[in-house]
This record gives sequence, C-alpha cells and structure tokens, in this order.
Amino acid sequence: MITLPAIRKAHLIVSRVALRTPILPLKFSDRLETFVKCENLQRTGSFKIRGAWHRISKLPKSCKGVTASSSGNHAQAVAFAARMRGLPACIVMLDQSVPHKVEGTRSYGAEVILGGSTSVVITERAEREAAERGWVFVPPFNDPDIIAGQGTVGLEIVQDLRGVRSVIVQIGGGGLSSGVMTAVKESNPKIKIFGVEPAGAAKMRAALDAGRVVTLPEVKTIADGLKPTRVSELTLEHVSKYADDVVGVDDADILDTARHLLLQEKLVVEPSGAAALAAVRAGKLKLPKGPAVAILSGGNADVRMILDSPPGGALRA
Amino acid sequence: MITLPAIRKAHLIVSRVALRTPILPLKFSDRLETFVKCENLQRTGSFKIRGAWHRISKLPKSCKGVTASSSGNHAQAVAFAARMRGLPACIVMLDQSVPHKVEGTRSYGAEVILGGSTSVVITERAEREAAERGWVFVPPFNDPDIIAGQGTVGLEIVQDLRGVRSVIVQIGGGGLSSGVMTAVKESNPKIKIFGVEPAGAAKMRAALDAGRVVTLPEVKTIADGLKPTRVSELTLEHVSKYADDVVGVDDADILDTARHLLLQEKLVVEPSGAAALAAVRAGKLKLPKGPAVAILSGGNADVRMILDSPPGGALRA
Repeated sequence: MITLPAIRKAHLIVSRVALRTPILPLKFSDRLETFVKCENLQRTGSFKIRGAWHRISKLPKSCKGVTASSSGNHAQAVAFAARMRGLPACIVMLDQSVPHKVEGTRSYGAEVILGGSTSVVITERAEREAAERGWVFVPPFNDPDIIAGQGTVGLEIVQDLRGVRSVIVQIGGGGLSSGVMTAVKESNPKIKIFGVEPAGAAKMRAALDAGRVVTLPEVKTIADGLKPTRVSELTLEHVSKYADDVVGVDDADILDTARHLLLQEKLVVEPSGAAALAAVRAGKLKLPKGPAVAILSGGNADVRMILDSPPGGALRA
Repeated sequence: MITLPAIRKAHLIVSRVALRTPILPLKFSDRLETFVKCENLQRTGSFKIRGAWHRISKLPKSCKGVTASSSGNHAQAVAFAARMRGLPACIVMLDQSVPHKVEGTRSYGAEVILGGSTSVVITERAEREAAERGWVFVPPFNDPDIIAGQGTVGLEIVQDLRGVRSVIVQIGGGGLSSGVMTAVKESNPKIKIFGVEPAGAAKMRAALDAGRVVTLPEVKTIADGLKPTRVSELTLEHVSKYADDVVGVDDADILDTARHLLLQEKLVVEPSGAAALAAVRAGKLKLPKGPAVAILSGGNADVRMILDSPPGGALRA
C-alpha cells in the first residue's frame, strides 16, 4: 500500500517538472462551492506526467531507454518525461488511438508503434520491446511509484483548498484514484472521496462487487482514457479501502459536461477528464455541504467533437 | 491620475466578487518563461467584472438601476454586477455584437437593447436611457473607479509572480491598460510594460503620436473587444506616462494565437484576449530576459470560428 509520506516524498520530485495546477470555482454558478482541479492545464495535457516523471526520474543511470503502452495520455507523459531525462522512448499505442494523442506523443520525440486494438495486446508488445532492447517498461498504473506520483494531485487539493469536504476522481486503471484517495483520506479521514467511472467501463465497480479483479468482456465509452478492461490488485486494494462510493456515469452526461466546460468555463477538457464533474452535475453523488473538488484529469480533447455533440444528457443542473 | 494606493483599496472590494485568476506558464514550451494571467477564467468570462463591480458596489443605496454600452464583455460584467447588487440593468449593445455575448448578458438578467452600429451611438443611447429612467450610466473605461478596478489585474501579477520582468497588456479604450500599467510601474518601475492593440484599431498609437486623443475614421479587426475608435484623455495620460512601448498586431497573428491557446494550452480565449500574447509570439516586442506575463483578458469566444481559422500568421514561434 502507498502511504501519505510516500506521496509527500514523491511531490518533491514531481513538482520539479509538473505544474501545481490551479483549483478554480465553477464561476458560472452563483454559489462557488464546486471546484475543479485543472490537470487539463498540466504539462503534456494531463496528470499522467506526475507518475511518469516520478517513475522515470528514479531510473538508474544505466537505463538506456523506456517503453510504455497507452491509449494516449500516459504515452505523451512518458515521451515528455523520457525527453527530460535524455532517454529514448518507444510507445505502443492502440490502433484506434485518437490521432492528436498520437501526434502529441511523436511531438515529444518518441517512437510510436500502433500495436493492436486492446490494452492487453499493446502492453505485451511494449513489454516485449523493452525486453528486446534492454529498456525499461513504464506501466500506466500498476506501480507504487506511478500511484504515489498521481497521488500528488490529492496532496495539492488538501493543501491548497482549505475546508474541502469532498473530492471526486475518475477511475481508469485506478492509478490516479488510488493515489488521490490515499493522499486525501490519510490527510483528513473526514473528507469524503468518490470514484467515478463510465457506466460502459465499470471495471472498478465490478471488482468491488466481486471482491477481486474482474476483466470486463468489453468496454464501451467515449472516455478513451478510462477504457482499461480491468483494474489491478494494487489499485483495487486502495480504492476498496478509501472510497466512500464508486459510481457510474453515462457518456451523454460526460459529453454535456465537456461541452459546458468548453463553452461556459472556457476550459478544454477531454471526455475522460470531464467524467468526475459529470457525476456531480448529473446528481449521482451524495455530496456533503461545503467545498467539493472534481478533478479535470486531462485536456487532450478533440474540440470539434465536443462542439458538435448535442447538448443534454440526464442533467439536473 | 489613478494611484497604487487606490488600486490596492479597489482590490479589497473587487476580490469579494472577482476570482484571483491563476498565472500559468505556457506549458508546451520547455523553457517556462512566458506566463499568462488567465482573466479568460474570470467570472463573466473577462476582467471587466473587476471594474464593473468596483464601480457598482460604490453606488449609493438610493441608486435605482444601471445602464451601460458595450460590444459584449463590459455588458456581461455590468449585468452580473448589477444582479449581485440587486439592481436592474439596461445594456445597449452594438447591432453586430457577437450573439453569444448578447445571450450571456441576457442570462444575467439584464435588459438588452441593440442600439446602433458604433460605440458613439450606443453610448449616447445608454446615457439617454439612464437620464430618462433616473438610473446610473456605468462607462466602459473612462472612469477612475473602473480603471482602478481593472488595475487589480496588474496588482495580482506583481504579488503572485515573483521576479516578473515584463507585462504585456492589450488596449481597447485603455481602461485595463491604464490600471495595469499604474499598478505594475508604481509597484516596481524596473518591470517593463507593453501595450498591444490591433493594427487595424491603433487608436492609442495614434493618440500617442498626436499627443492628444484622436478618433479613428474606421477600425477593422477580429478583436471585437478592442474596437473603440478612440481612447480617452484619462487613459492616454496613464499609458503615455507608463508604457515602455505600444505596438500593433495583425489579426492573423491574433487568430493563430487564439488557436494555439485552444488546441495546445487547453484555454478558450477570445481574439481580444489573445492579442497581448500574439505580440509576444510574433516577436513584436523587445522583451527583457526573465518571466514575462501576457494578460489573457477574456474568454467569451466563438470557439468554432477559432477552430475553423487557418493556422499561420507571421509567427516565429
């Protein structure tokens, strides 16, 4: 299990590269009680740089290069972090990865291989590339250093927003949520923390219900960053210990929230990044009174797609 | 002339309603020396709420309502500030005002009159409406309280970014620039400050060259918030005293910068709001080494128009 001291230590390393992103109130409401932690404004466009830099900066001097597998944001983060360390990077991405995420990864100087259509296949390929080249595979979430790195998002929320009463975080493989939940609950157990995943990719809910990691036969969601078919033992352990609840949210609500953020709040947020706030807006959570912070985990969005999406969804606000 | 103590005093009032917006490094450059002050993330979507609230909160209890004339951002700010004070507002806007700015103004509960095609005509109408109703006209820039309110943007830059060496601010009627220049130069005369206006609406340059306020026969720019045909004696006085330089920037560079901010920096910024940074990116300014802050003055953009604009412009970066 990751601990608060480990996350504090990670923060010293992470903050050399990652921005301390702002926490903003949603300004178009009159009561300013819902806040967003803007990891969409983070370097590389998502929180992923935190874990990737934490892991890569700790690699021994003898390391010759890194590989990774990713649908997009971890890819860009590993490519950027590798360049900062002066290491070559080989990133295996999904055949159907969003084109601008592939371009983004290449723009940081990484070699990109479109290596398959499932996370299992591209992960095997990235591990094989690492073995053949004598490089190091950087996992997307199932790693203590990655989790501690992502947990620094939670640490900054607790440090920067006095009186915060609840934190809402999206769940992909569980790296961000495990780290954030640990940082928040170990700092102050009274703060409520909620996990949110797409209803069409509810692998953490399945794992919590089964009491063990479950591989979903298929996942279907617009939130490409939250698409792993399974969590890991490690992330399940953290979420089952700390989460007050884990809920699902529909794609329609996710898109409506991304659209609202773009047009009203002037923030570009990708669907995965809008999922946590979507659960708040759709009334899926029993939030206590007082400041609530939803994490906007990434901003690497197809802006035109968001703009063209129909307004609506099962929203109460 | 406005003074630093007046701006400090205004800040106590302004900060009850306006957000202390973040100052972010442009994260997609490796050297993090160019920063942006994100007034696009301000309540009502622009810095205008600062001056409007400062002015309106000081109105006597006997005040029955307010009027204003504006192409859009001052309109929304006055509407919002009036609602916060519990006052009715009548806003006279240009016939050709951007539709979403008209909608935005109405959404804050204000009565909107589309009252003409030039700033002179709509201003006369707003003043007449005020006289007939016994309400108070809130000017967009030619007012000490408005200028002191806008100056709080500069105060926050100096307070929040240690070691700032230069500040770049756009010029419309000169309210923001007068206030910011005063706040910055009176805090630290060593900080360089630059004014930027569209090449097709260079009324401050014309006034500086003539040594008096000049009315331009016509203005032509995509930056609808920087379109006044003339500055005022008051704003000319501040800018001529404090500006290290005032330069023009082309629409192509403004649009390219708005596009860059949207796609790379994940920030929605309107053309007027992107003008200061556009001058930096286009190499129009002799910036000293060290941190430079460009003000993103507003975010009430037509996102589709920015997305559809061709990339390019005379950019070096």
